[in-house]
Amino acid sequence: MSEAKVTYVDGLQFVAAATSGHAVVMDGDIEVGGRDTGPRPMEMLLMGIGGCSGMDVISILKKKKQDVKGLEINVKGDKAENYPKKFTDINLEFVVRGKNISEDAVKRAVELSMEKYCSVKATLEGSAKITYNYRIVGE
Amino acid sequence: MSEAKVTYVDGLQFVAAATSGHAVVMDGDIEVGGRDTGPRPMEMLLMGIGGCSGMDVISILKKKKQDVKGLEINVKGDKAENYPKKFTDINLEFVVRGKNISEDAVKRAVELSMEKYCSVKATLEGSAKITYNYRIVGE
Repeated sequence: MSEAKVTYVDGLQFVAAATSGHAVVMDGDIEVGGRDTGPRPMEMLLMGIGGCSGMDVISILKKKKQDVKGLEINVKGDKAENYPKKFTDINLEFVVRGKNISEDAVKRAVELSMEKYCSVKATLEGSAKITYNYRIVGE
Repeated sequence: MSEAKVTYVDGLQFVAAATSGHAVVMDGDIEVGGRDTGPRPMEMLLMGIGGCSGMDVISILKKKKQDVKGLEINVKGDKAENYPKKFTDINLEFVVRGKNISEDAVKRAVELSMEKYCSVKATLEGSAKITYNYRIVGE
């Protein structure tokens, strides 16, 4: 069981505190009455899938003794035009930086996360088509 | 198009920066090599659905001239036991605080969010069964 207690502050600002004890402020666009003091709720999903898959990929690459100097996940989400405007397509680009990084290791790490381990990906893929690719860049 | 750039820091710590310009630190449990400096990625989904529906409900209740003094959304998520351990069930409890709050208005606001407007709910319900209830409490 995982929990979040989400408390209204004012305007469209909410503070969400989760089981881990950490809290995040969320807010709405200024055009709709928010004050833009925190991320939008839909952005939380893209952040979450990036963090989830990133933790998988870095853990697997370390186990495979890869000398990773940097890892970035660029997540893009397309929404439906009509309400409820859910995510229809999400793409993740994994950018691994380092010296002598094995392409096989990166391919396998990304696939293991996407196809086996990443809980956020598995939750979101019921609605959104999720695609992914990777790049390896030098130090 | 909504985007997030998720950058590895160290351990299992990532910083996610979204289109709105706001950033959130995520981290893993200490038992799995994290340092617990931020929420878990799966918690981001529960926070997101609470914030999304909360923004809908507060906006609708204000339009309905309800004198809301407080709003809290308690979100609980159950995960599958086996990998990828996706959310299977999510419950939202909306707690509206105020004087002379119309139960009809609250019922309608919650239903409009859950069944029509909330983008996060619509995205998550492809995988998880989402249930909700509400309570009205005095000032």
